[in-house]
Amino acid sequence: MLEAFFTPQSVAVIGAARAPGKLGYGVLSNILQYGYSGKVYPINPKADEVLGLKSYPTVLDVPGPVDMVVIVIPNRFVPQVMEQCGQKGVKAAIIISAGFREAGMEGIKLERQVLDTAKKYKIRVVGPNCLGIISPYTPLNASFAAGMPPKGGIAFMSQSGALCTAILDWALSEGIGFSHFVSLGNKADVDEVDLLQAWQEDENARVIIVYMEGLKDGQRFIRVARQVTQHKPVIAVKSGNTAAGSRAVSSHTGTLAGSERAYEAAFKQTGVLRADSIEHLFDYSLAFAYQPPLKGINIAIVTNAGGPGIMATDALESSGLKLAALQPETIERLRQGLPAAANVYNPIDVIGDALTDRYAHALKAALDDKNVDGVIVILTPQVYTQIEKTAEVIGRLAANTEKPVLGCFMGQQRVGPGIKILSQYSIPNYSFPERAVGAFKAMAEFWDTRQRSAPQYVQFQVDQQTVRQLFDRVRDEGRLTLGDAESREIMEAYGLRIPRSVLAKTADEAVAAAESIGYPVVMKIASPDILHKSDIGGVRLNIRDADQVRDSFDLLVYRAQRYMADARIWGVLVQEMVSRGKEIIIGVNRDPQFGPLLMFGLGGIYVEVLKDVTFRIAPLSRREASEMMNEIRSYHLLRGVRGEKPADLEAIIDTILRVSQLVTDFPEIVEMDINPLTVHEEGRGAVAVDMRFVLKEKESEQE
Amino acid sequence: MLEAFFTPQSVAVIGAARAPGKLGYGVLSNILQYGYSGKVYPINPKADEVLGLKSYPTVLDVPGPVDMVVIVIPNRFVPQVMEQCGQKGVKAAIIISAGFREAGMEGIKLERQVLDTAKKYKIRVVGPNCLGIISPYTPLNASFAAGMPPKGGIAFMSQSGALCTAILDWALSEGIGFSHFVSLGNKADVDEVDLLQAWQEDENARVIIVYMEGLKDGQRFIRVARQVTQHKPVIAVKSGNTAAGSRAVSSHTGTLAGSERAYEAAFKQTGVLRADSIEHLFDYSLAFAYQPPLKGINIAIVTNAGGPGIMATDALESSGLKLAALQPETIERLRQGLPAAANVYNPIDVIGDALTDRYAHALKAALDDKNVDGVIVILTPQVYTQIEKTAEVIGRLAANTEKPVLGCFMGQQRVGPGIKILSQYSIPNYSFPERAVGAFKAMAEFWDTRQRSAPQYVQFQVDQQTVRQLFDRVRDEGRLTLGDAESREIMEAYGLRIPRSVLAKTADEAVAAAESIGYPVVMKIASPDILHKSDIGGVRLNIRDADQVRDSFDLLVYRAQRYMADARIWGVLVQEMVSRGKEIIIGVNRDPQFGPLLMFGLGGIYVEVLKDVTFRIAPLSRREASEMMNEIRSYHLLRGVRGEKPADLEAIIDTILRVSQLVTDFPEIVEMDINPLTVHEEGRGAVAVDMRFVLKEKESEQE
Repeated sequence: MLEAFFTPQSVAVIGAARAPGKLGYGVLSNILQYGYSGKVYPINPKADEVLGLKSYPTVLDVPGPVDMVVIVIPNRFVPQVMEQCGQKGVKAAIIISAGFREAGMEGIKLERQVLDTAKKYKIRVVGPNCLGIISPYTPLNASFAAGMPPKGGIAFMSQSGALCTAILDWALSEGIGFSHFVSLGNKADVDEVDLLQAWQEDENARVIIVYMEGLKDGQRFIRVARQVTQHKPVIAVKSGNTAAGSRAVSSHTGTLAGSERAYEAAFKQTGVLRADSIEHLFDYSLAFAYQPPLKGINIAIVTNAGGPGIMATDALESSGLKLAALQPETIERLRQGLPAAANVYNPIDVIGDALTDRYAHALKAALDDKNVDGVIVILTPQVYTQIEKTAEVIGRLAANTEKPVLGCFMGQQRVGPGIKILSQYSIPNYSFPERAVGAFKAMAEFWDTRQRSAPQYVQFQVDQQTVRQLFDRVRDEGRLTLGDAESREIMEAYGLRIPRSVLAKTADEAVAAAESIGYPVVMKIASPDILHKSDIGGVRLNIRDADQVRDSFDLLVYRAQRYMADARIWGVLVQEMVSRGKEIIIGVNRDPQFGPLLMFGLGGIYVEVLKDVTFRIAPLSRREASEMMNEIRSYHLLRGVRGEKPADLEAIIDTILRVSQLVTDFPEIVEMDINPLTVHEEGRGAVAVDMRFVLKEKESEQE
Repeated sequence: MLEAFFTPQSVAVIGAARAPGKLGYGVLSNILQYGYSGKVYPINPKADEVLGLKSYPTVLDVPGPVDMVVIVIPNRFVPQVMEQCGQKGVKAAIIISAGFREAGMEGIKLERQVLDTAKKYKIRVVGPNCLGIISPYTPLNASFAAGMPPKGGIAFMSQSGALCTAILDWALSEGIGFSHFVSLGNKADVDEVDLLQAWQEDENARVIIVYMEGLKDGQRFIRVARQVTQHKPVIAVKSGNTAAGSRAVSSHTGTLAGSERAYEAAFKQTGVLRADSIEHLFDYSLAFAYQPPLKGINIAIVTNAGGPGIMATDALESSGLKLAALQPETIERLRQGLPAAANVYNPIDVIGDALTDRYAHALKAALDDKNVDGVIVILTPQVYTQIEKTAEVIGRLAANTEKPVLGCFMGQQRVGPGIKILSQYSIPNYSFPERAVGAFKAMAEFWDTRQRSAPQYVQFQVDQQTVRQLFDRVRDEGRLTLGDAESREIMEAYGLRIPRSVLAKTADEAVAAAESIGYPVVMKIASPDILHKSDIGGVRLNIRDADQVRDSFDLLVYRAQRYMADARIWGVLVQEMVSRGKEIIIGVNRDPQFGPLLMFGLGGIYVEVLKDVTFRIAPLSRREASEMMNEIRSYHLLRGVRGEKPADLEAIIDTILRVSQLVTDFPEIVEMDINPLTVHEEGRGAVAVDMRFVLKEKESEQE
């Protein structure tokens, strides 16, 4: 689909320059210098020849077909050049030039113009305002970057071009290899999701890593990323997390950064691993790119030093991995091959004077143990330590196993040559134990993601028709909020249990209603103009007989009129008084990038004071709904403490999933809350006691 | 005090060997090779000469005085050699030899023997089982390490010798300088606290860093560290945090690792900064060692790339630092000196094509701004970036300011020479923005520590005598737990408010008591043999009249006898029924390293389910008590939510401090709980409703 960017047969550089130091020179010279074997055409109306190649005034003058162009000319000329590209039948355009969306109103117009032309001719565009693309396997360096990384298993994309330069500079000196290296720039057309899709089946890309500041279409990201992570790991650094960070994003690229909560939820739901820094991004990706997959959480540590062994152990435990419990035969084998002072339990300490033979013995034993899923080999450069020779042996042993082995040769000067040897054997080295553990943790998470079965979406039998008609009616009346009875109608249409309830227009009707429902009852004023009923004394609880019903009816109507003289009063709602239970809140807010963001938590102080809530993006699978419950700190309270019976967890899941279906079916719901959802003991269900809906204005839907 | 280790006039190497590859050769050759100017004496009975120096059979044969010895002989010979050192008047001994406490029972005996001799002759000992000591300023390399680090501001000590080798290897290639470098080994004598004390006044040591696995005397550590951090930063990595990690510690060095909670509290209370990895340890220490102190939390960022600027901003905000709000005149100045597309607000983006002049302009403006406390300069290697020249200018500007400047030149190959220049100007470089922010965060914490006034210890007027006698009496009776009346007596002696209460021996006495206290009352069985009264139905609440008092009296006595036929029954306690309030738990447990570890939290589910508690080591200052309250997540509940009045916070602080004084005065209290402490509204005090004490066995005190 995007092959024309990565393996074009021919490339034209529009704006190819003769003066070294100019970007148009840099791009052309990179294409030529790093061995591209296709046809290359410089385009420059003012030159006959650039860098020894015949130059053409426009792309239309090129004799053969042109698959891809790289555009390096001032912004105002780009639209007309795109038109020419279209006529020429170009499939892919990398626009390096800046001065588009990132540069204000004029630039936004220019970018739209370019994109319209591209769409007309079905040209895919990377950029504008980017560094270019490097495809080491082709090989093709269609960028103005200083250097060309070797081939490797990492497919990299970044919204920040400057970050590309920094990473390339680092990768070059470390010898890190890439399958793809893409600077996305303004993402006028090709974005993260397109590349995820393109790289899903590409065998050279063993791991995909992304630096992103914002996404255009969150739901599409979720759909695609969820598939891709079934095939290969995807690791993302998302910046602009905090409030101040988000401001910087807006001023930088004009992307409207989605709320942090929504991204967090999206990464969880798709299995995209999140790194909290570029350093961790590469720590993880090296393990994925160079080592076989980790298939468990049990790690063995081989070390010649106690201290670092402890540090690794600490890190393992606090990250949720496990120090593998070695089999008795492994322990016996270690005891025979190691001196008495060695520790033959995990972490296996071959002690300070260990030569290569002890490392070999210990590593072999660990790898042969079926309780061990992966091994970290720690080496400190002590007096007798044989650094290179040990690296050789580790490399050979690791090459003959299906289990991942990570190096942790600590130090720099003396251990440097050993680290180089490890890298020849495709073993990444981490300078500190915690970082090696971090890489294994990422691998364990990916393994966990792949173990998951495909998400199961329950589809409940609901009455969409009623809700559709109700929303239309409400919006035709110019309202965005719903009356109580309307909210109840929606809940019922989606099978959500609400208190039994009758709208009474007179005190007599109210008494009849109360008697049919059974005492005690709750009474609430019914008016579309009064949203926060409790605040005006519009709700009365625990009404126990007919006299109290009559008194309450009059009181509620009086208060409503006092609050707002011209309020439309439909009557009084007489409701079943829900017996006590755990109070839950389920809310939905519409995130600009991701759509319906569903919140779950315990009500009252848990949500208000402790902020003990969790989020997912709808639609949710059954497993996701159940994970939400597990994630909150107060989950124990739902499970029952001090001999209480557990709450009806199934009823909670059912409610979450029905709400998920509702807000997915009706994008016009911009906000909704069920607060509280009163949950009774196991098997006794849950009742939505109060709820609130806010709809989108009709006009804004067309955006 | 420990000068003899760092600046001895003469050194003898006991076990100096002629064969390269032997440790005794390595040590002597390190002393000679790295320029030690004092007298050096090889001791080796089998040689006349070692490495060109005259050798002596024993240290007693050396003609002149010997300040320090380095011992590198098999373990079994060390005791007799120590005896000779004593006779010779040696002041300091580094025992490199292994085979002591870490090697089992025999080794423990040997170590005790060596230590006894050392004490007899007042010889201080570092080790055994260590790498040695390096003193770059002397210069003296009294270790078998491979290499000698340059002079610098970092004083380093480590319990793990292997870690020393790794760090040295890394420091050598990075050119990191040290003032002291000590491998502590088994810490038979000299330990972390001794070195802290020794380095407090040493001007060469600008920052002290410690790798520790456990401490011997926690209270002494707190006393000393608290003083040292008033002079210079102390940064610690403490490993063996998690359960599994602790097991590894025990098997490694035989140190009994203190509980993680106690260390956490100790670091907080002393202002010792904690790093969670060796990487962070050095990230922080470089900033402290090479840059002026940070005196605030407002950071400016200068960058030539938006992405990394956002990452830095995110990291700043989430670490509690602030993106400095630049003054209007700074913004104007930036606007004049930078192109229109630049961002003149913080983070200051000089954009991708910036040459050195823009960096100079931006950095100067930021440093001149009084709202800015420190600056991070980010540089990505873009096409036109002048890396070395920019580094030069940053270096010169930083040298002329009192504000700290940290570098973040991202990449490796191209930026390498720039990083070298920064380091010549004493500017540490961090490869990623998050790490530079981490260093500033550590500096801000240190600044905060230094701002603090010395801790104020309140000394309440209490009745120690009564408690002393009571404990003696209880322990003379062979009991370790207290009866209710006894607990109440202790509380009263320390001015802790408890419910008014009278012990009644008959039903009539109980009625009289209830009438003098006022209804409603609580009644509890009073027996030293029944600890958990509620469990046997031994507590009755809300008793409202004389008849109920009589009934309850009989019922409680009956139940107690049924539960334990021969229980000693003192009667029934008639108590004031405490009105409702917030329920607090204050508990104390004695930690083996640190002593009384005091816990604070809200009672009920907050402590049981949410584990929302915090710890400090007694004695506590007023500020520490108040910090405890602030730290728990449920603090808001004490402040009052939804229009409630705040709880009586002063009464809580008072209670914490009185408990702190009590457990400090009486080390025989191994456990105590006040649960609940019922706290009323502001100004209305707090009442300890229930409490529990456990005492130490008399014998175990003599340990």
